[in-house]
Amino acid sequence: MNRRDFNSIMAAGLAASLVPSRWTLAQARAPEDLRVDGERLNAHLATLSEIGRNPEGGVSRVAYSDYDRAGRALVLDWMRAAKLEPSIDFAGNIIGRRAGRDATLKPLLFGSHLDSVPHGGNYDGNLGSLAAIEVAQVFAEHNVVTRHPIEVVVWQNEEGGLYGSRAVSGQLTPPELKSVSNSGKTVEEGIAFLGGDVSKLDQVKRRKGDIGCYLELHIEQGGTLEAGKVDIGIVEGIVGIKQWEVTVTGFANHAGTTPMDQRHDALLAAAHFVEMVNRIVRSIPGAQVGTVGRIQAFPGAPNVIPGKVVCTLELRDLADAKVDMMFEKIQAEAKVIGAQNGTQFAYTELHVNFAAPSDPRMRNIIAHSAEALKLSSRVMPSGAGHDAQAMAQIGPMGMIFIPSIGGISHSPKEFSRPLDIVNGANVLLRSVLAADQMFA
Amino acid sequence: MNRRDFNSIMAAGLAASLVPSRWTLAQARAPEDLRVDGERLNAHLATLSEIGRNPEGGVSRVAYSDYDRAGRALVLDWMRAAKLEPSIDFAGNIIGRRAGRDATLKPLLFGSHLDSVPHGGNYDGNLGSLAAIEVAQVFAEHNVVTRHPIEVVVWQNEEGGLYGSRAVSGQLTPPELKSVSNSGKTVEEGIAFLGGDVSKLDQVKRRKGDIGCYLELHIEQGGTLEAGKVDIGIVEGIVGIKQWEVTVTGFANHAGTTPMDQRHDALLAAAHFVEMVNRIVRSIPGAQVGTVGRIQAFPGAPNVIPGKVVCTLELRDLADAKVDMMFEKIQAEAKVIGAQNGTQFAYTELHVNFAAPSDPRMRNIIAHSAEALKLSSRVMPSGAGHDAQAMAQIGPMGMIFIPSIGGISHSPKEFSRPLDIVNGANVLLRSVLAADQMFA
Repeated sequence: MNRRDFNSIMAAGLAASLVPSRWTLAQARAPEDLRVDGERLNAHLATLSEIGRNPEGGVSRVAYSDYDRAGRALVLDWMRAAKLEPSIDFAGNIIGRRAGRDATLKPLLFGSHLDSVPHGGNYDGNLGSLAAIEVAQVFAEHNVVTRHPIEVVVWQNEEGGLYGSRAVSGQLTPPELKSVSNSGKTVEEGIAFLGGDVSKLDQVKRRKGDIGCYLELHIEQGGTLEAGKVDIGIVEGIVGIKQWEVTVTGFANHAGTTPMDQRHDALLAAAHFVEMVNRIVRSIPGAQVGTVGRIQAFPGAPNVIPGKVVCTLELRDLADAKVDMMFEKIQAEAKVIGAQNGTQFAYTELHVNFAAPSDPRMRNIIAHSAEALKLSSRVMPSGAGHDAQAMAQIGPMGMIFIPSIGGISHSPKEFSRPLDIVNGANVLLRSVLAADQMFA
Repeated sequence: MNRRDFNSIMAAGLAASLVPSRWTLAQARAPEDLRVDGERLNAHLATLSEIGRNPEGGVSRVAYSDYDRAGRALVLDWMRAAKLEPSIDFAGNIIGRRAGRDATLKPLLFGSHLDSVPHGGNYDGNLGSLAAIEVAQVFAEHNVVTRHPIEVVVWQNEEGGLYGSRAVSGQLTPPELKSVSNSGKTVEEGIAFLGGDVSKLDQVKRRKGDIGCYLELHIEQGGTLEAGKVDIGIVEGIVGIKQWEVTVTGFANHAGTTPMDQRHDALLAAAHFVEMVNRIVRSIPGAQVGTVGRIQAFPGAPNVIPGKVVCTLELRDLADAKVDMMFEKIQAEAKVIGAQNGTQFAYTELHVNFAAPSDPRMRNIIAHSAEALKLSSRVMPSGAGHDAQAMAQIGPMGMIFIPSIGGISHSPKEFSRPLDIVNGANVLLRSVLAADQMFA
């Protein structure tokens, strides 16, 4: 279907019921009536879940593993079937491109990732990648040619730290290429394993304005949509994350001979700290979170009062300033805790990710797409990091969430309902079309 | 000096000033004027501290190591110099025996151990062992022949779990022989390494009534004597110890996407537990102690809410019933803590040591010995385990403490003042003589 035909269909909004056969029916549909093939999308998800499948369910398809490469090979086939022209960029990302009607326009990017955490689930990343291919396939089947070029992207090594998308947004630093991934390979080795070439990473970088927009469909990985019986989450932004290693220093001593009032018990102080972090984070209105996820006491014997405790602290919020404010409160209260039993707290920053707000126009597009599909929606933060946060550095970013049952993710128990999957993919489809209209 | 001569000296209480030379002077002294050679005792302690010395001070003379054997060789020489007849029993203990005037009487045992914890100090065990030899040497130099046979005992592998003394009291079980000690050797291999023979362990067992009494001098390993400026601790008994492994089960989830009010954070529950144990133990009058010494969160990543925490709980008191009562309170409160955030607590018993009270007659003897030496004393529990608790199973047990500076033990910083060492050894000397008179 050429450009004029497409436009006339857009204008006419022809009723689907006029045309009998499935394919002809589709051809005749107005873009606003286009729907993904939900059965095909769910079948693709099921097929992909066999690659790296764990005995207990879910997958271990860690980046740079043989399973990762096998999953990518399958996706390359599906891209070709969807009439995309896939290639692997120097950073190891898969980019499935299709030209638009106007070669002067910037590409619209949409996609996600295929790699999983060890013992992960079947939806995190997979959904957004396969739904993006499905959208492209529906466009092809219905001869929908967008104004902008489209690029369906499957980013490499999202779980390890957004390596593929950060290479493209220019945030990846050379020392990071030496870090060892869950596969046992360094990032550098892994990129070569996937068909990239780190010596040419500079060539994959895109600058602000190089893309029309970026859209990503993802499972929520939390329980708020399911709990609120909401179909679609409109991501307000991806939270900023700061992580510290916290060292509590007391004095190790004999647990039998040291009276209770003469102890400098680092674990007792750390216990007060864990409680206090929880209390402070919960005392402020908002969706911020705070977690102590790792802890160890030294020397770590049942009969020795811990002289040192090392634990982690992680704080996340959409506003970086709120993260800093919470950390200041925590440090101040920790001093008081330490003074109570003669222990000291020290902090080493482990990791910082600044907050990445989504583009208000993209939120609007997603909201209207959901509304047109009679789906309920809610604006919400993404507490998890996503490739979308790297893309927000170079163009308007929008992100669509669907419910995760029980809020469970990074687990074989991760699950999203087939209907929610279809809903999310349809919102993605409409949002791509709307973005295609909106952006110059 | 024969028995009649000794008795006549006892009766006469000859004034020391009558006799000029040191040795003659000593010979002429009444038992109540006998004193240890403090310089020699402190010099012996200093010499022993060179064997297995750590670069940072203190010793790592773990049981069954080459250093352990070297320390024992030195002690065998010192025993011979003290006119004891040392032998190694089948359990690997060193027993330095000297006959008394009445071969029908049970032996009086006194001593301690030579082995240390890794990176331990120079006083724990060493003091009691070398002071016992010093007492025997003073008896020999002054021709004091006791009524009872005396046995200066150096127990093997006290730190690992009172292996030598429990073999003698009949409490050591065959499976324990297979456990691996800090030296890397199993207890069985270690006993052979020291010259014992586990196939004949039955022959070292002694029954209730087989010994006249047992006396042990030891550093307090706590800070109460120093803090109270008290010279001598009269051990009321050795506390009962119970240890559990505590497992807190919650639900692991994404630390970014799981709202604070939807978490089943096992570490938050464990933090409440640590605080609660401390609060309950401190809320009851008495010298009981409670400690959480080891803790680990699973999966243990900064960005994952802990789904499981494993920690230890240790409770100690002179009254086993109080330990049980505290544990019941702790279990009840842990249920409430768990109910607050949907976590469960489970307990596995790791270790039980029942309380071992000292003999009231032995406490009296020690109190009078201290008084005669114009030393202040205080009756107190021993929060640490000692070989004396095994000996309490088979005869009247008494234990003498001297101050540990800063209450520090199991550390290179462990220290006791030379004067306190001499005081403690003199109390031991007088107590042995008094016990020799008291017991049939």
